[in-house]
Amino acid sequence: MSEKQGVTPRNEDYSRWYTDVVQMAELADYAPVRGCMIILPYGYELWEAVRAGLDRRFKETGHRNAYFPLFIPESFLKKEAEHVEGFSPELAVVTIGGGKELEEPLVVRPTSETIIGWAYAKWIQSYRDLPVLINQWANVVRWEMRTRLFLRTMEFLWQEGHTAHATYDEAEEETRRMLDIYRDFAVTDAAIPVIPGRKSDSEKFAGALHSYTIEAMMGDRRALQSGTSHNLGQNFAKAFDIKYLDLNNELQYCWTTSWGLSTRFIGAMIMAHGDDKGLRLPPRMAPIQVVIVPIYKDEAEKTAVMDTVWRMKATLRDADIRVHVDDREGQTPGFKYNDWEMRGVPLRMEIGPKDVQKNSVALARRDIPGREGKQFVPQEGIVTAVRNLLDDIQANMLKQATEFRDSNLTEVVGDYQRFGEIIESGGWALTWFSGDREEEQKIKEDFQCVSRCFPLEQPYPNQTGPSIVSGKTAQKMAFFARSY
Amino acid sequence: MSEKQGVTPRNEDYSRWYTDVVQMAELADYAPVRGCMIILPYGYELWEAVRAGLDRRFKETGHRNAYFPLFIPESFLKKEAEHVEGFSPELAVVTIGGGKELEEPLVVRPTSETIIGWAYAKWIQSYRDLPVLINQWANVVRWEMRTRLFLRTMEFLWQEGHTAHATYDEAEEETRRMLDIYRDFAVTDAAIPVIPGRKSDSEKFAGALHSYTIEAMMGDRRALQSGTSHNLGQNFAKAFDIKYLDLNNELQYCWTTSWGLSTRFIGAMIMAHGDDKGLRLPPRMAPIQVVIVPIYKDEAEKTAVMDTVWRMKATLRDADIRVHVDDREGQTPGFKYNDWEMRGVPLRMEIGPKDVQKNSVALARRDIPGREGKQFVPQEGIVTAVRNLLDDIQANMLKQATEFRDSNLTEVVGDYQRFGEIIESGGWALTWFSGDREEEQKIKEDFQCVSRCFPLEQPYPNQTGPSIVSGKTAQKMAFFARSY
Repeated sequence: MSEKQGVTPRNEDYSRWYTDVVQMAELADYAPVRGCMIILPYGYELWEAVRAGLDRRFKETGHRNAYFPLFIPESFLKKEAEHVEGFSPELAVVTIGGGKELEEPLVVRPTSETIIGWAYAKWIQSYRDLPVLINQWANVVRWEMRTRLFLRTMEFLWQEGHTAHATYDEAEEETRRMLDIYRDFAVTDAAIPVIPGRKSDSEKFAGALHSYTIEAMMGDRRALQSGTSHNLGQNFAKAFDIKYLDLNNELQYCWTTSWGLSTRFIGAMIMAHGDDKGLRLPPRMAPIQVVIVPIYKDEAEKTAVMDTVWRMKATLRDADIRVHVDDREGQTPGFKYNDWEMRGVPLRMEIGPKDVQKNSVALARRDIPGREGKQFVPQEGIVTAVRNLLDDIQANMLKQATEFRDSNLTEVVGDYQRFGEIIESGGWALTWFSGDREEEQKIKEDFQCVSRCFPLEQPYPNQTGPSIVSGKTAQKMAFFARSY
Repeated sequence: MSEKQGVTPRNEDYSRWYTDVVQMAELADYAPVRGCMIILPYGYELWEAVRAGLDRRFKETGHRNAYFPLFIPESFLKKEAEHVEGFSPELAVVTIGGGKELEEPLVVRPTSETIIGWAYAKWIQSYRDLPVLINQWANVVRWEMRTRLFLRTMEFLWQEGHTAHATYDEAEEETRRMLDIYRDFAVTDAAIPVIPGRKSDSEKFAGALHSYTIEAMMGDRRALQSGTSHNLGQNFAKAFDIKYLDLNNELQYCWTTSWGLSTRFIGAMIMAHGDDKGLRLPPRMAPIQVVIVPIYKDEAEKTAVMDTVWRMKATLRDADIRVHVDDREGQTPGFKYNDWEMRGVPLRMEIGPKDVQKNSVALARRDIPGREGKQFVPQEGIVTAVRNLLDDIQANMLKQATEFRDSNLTEVVGDYQRFGEIIESGGWALTWFSGDREEEQKIKEDFQCVSRCFPLEQPYPNQTGPSIVSGKTAQKMAFFARSY
């Protein structure tokens, strides 16, 4: 029974563990079309939590949502040279509409810089129209050959912000502001200690001046790019003729940005926090924060227990705590404990006849296994007790993930062999790096990894060091790691 | 100036009035792909209000959101005979993916009964798995030749609910429950007095056993189908093999339903309430409920006025009233009044030097033009005053729309010529109708209209009457009207 119920242990097969968790916790399922997925209700509730956390932050910083078409004329993609090169191998193309062959095929959006660029060119006339701060929640399609649920799927859900500004500085400020919103969301809400940084030239977005990223360490120590923010410079403004009249009545190209975070982030939450029992969800993101499991042997006990159970549920719900009662018949409490642990619910409340007698309940934390994580608390004042525990779990999960991350980061200076050993052992290396494409290509060939980012917080600001491959002077240190 | 600012009067050209409102109020814009639209921030905020109002109701009735793929294998569409006949002329088809011709073309979903049917067949094993109550928020594509912003676009946003049940009765109950949720949302939140009813056989959804609808009367008296709920019987269950083991351990086909409401509903709000000044938004749906317009002649006045303006704004915002201050320089208060009336803001607050002196503000209602709709109220207690007024406006808009609807409904019995006159004059006719396809076809040919619905609330329950074309005995009365 317990074998059938459990997920594959992580050290046995991490990849299998991941798929087990996604499927057994009913987060997602495979679709009949290769590379697509069905996001199941529990998984979609996580996406709703992502959406709510980001949407609030976007609106607080003056952004508004809009919606642009799914279909983009094929010719649009070709207007920005790097962009078309980056995306054309990944396109899904509609060639038939209403039973007829189309004169110009339509591309299913892989991202919307081009069609939004077209619109901005139409809408923006003068400096008074700037900045334009728009976000859209949408599905996008990229024809991927090797897909994995949430991490890389042919179709995925995301938000893509697109803004236009009068100056480089304003665009850069926006790009960094949105990166910081991603960082704050990941750290504060999802308890993932992401590292914000800048992408190297080889790794930046197709068409961007430069790209920023938040990089997260997964349970197998691989890196996952969890959100990106791009300063597009004037590349798309020039390709789509997005111009404004400045204060001197002269036409200027705009400076644009784009930034996105996708359902991939759900994969980040699974792998940053999960353990051999399954999912572990940070309380702020958890669709169910508290699950109540009633314990009784007969009808008399059941009546008394369920009375307390429904009262506790109502009390917590009225305090806006997301609570669920597992009143399934024919399952033992032990089965239910395992089931909800596997589904990552942060806090379990057990209520049996003794608890009813003592006016107490047992609370078991998902983040601390066994007796250590269990305590008995009075029913009176349960809301405060639960709130404090949820806050504690939230903080502790961030602490655990941060310690795990930091214990797997190694600084290496000028020693390419040592660098390779770190990467090959699965760790992250922090090293001086010039950012040159040739150097990065060599590292890729030697160790099957590329740079994750130049962290914004440099350990030795204003210093230089020997770039890891060439030894020539590098201005910044970068993280390298194998990645998803 | 006022000509440039204003929309085309409705009686001059209703269709032009509609397009003016959509574009001048910045609700939507045309896209570079024929038949597609860009939903602008103000329009998308209306959609967010629709989404919030419905999503809350769906969840309160036990439904959960999920997400199914955009692409459907072409073969799926062909499994339900009526369904494929209804939808195949409207399909957009992806034939190229990742640079290669696909073996099986993929259809961009026009609706998701088929792919969800495939999933339900996989998920549902026994009566214990039932009911399945799932909704999805998604984009869909139907290749339309004649499109109009919001009302009929090639791509639109909607929600589609899909449920599976053990019995016909449960499926029918669900179908009616969701229709009633649409009715309640339309009436209570959007102040549109929709008529809930059943579609005739000719007008039902392709593949349904029967379809229900909420029908709304627009300002030009045309009908707009604003939301539909379908009892699909066992049609899709048989096509996709959705079976469950019943209590007797026998395999049974499920009974399924589907129900949807789309961005078309924004068109309904525009046309149910708009007047010659532009949009009129019911307070519960309005992105901005109160706009504050400051009035001053010089810097000294401005300082005093703006101080009160920001104080009022903070007071209203803290009470969760959606408030906006129009502090644009270089525009007269009169221009701003017209502008916000055109954008349909329910309540305008004017604050000038005299108001500052008297500790009062002027409030002007959008639903009652001129002096009659204007009053001066003390700043103290402003929250209560504004709340009461917004409630009043909400109720009055529903009253106005209901009176307009009822004054344009005419009952006609057994007089086909009179029936035709009502339809040709643009009104709605309520008449006995057999529901026969041949009769409906004749009406369509004679008067370019079809039945809107058999209203659930029949004026003469348990009676019969002569069907309008054939004269044979009809069990129910139906509404007929020209429609969008």
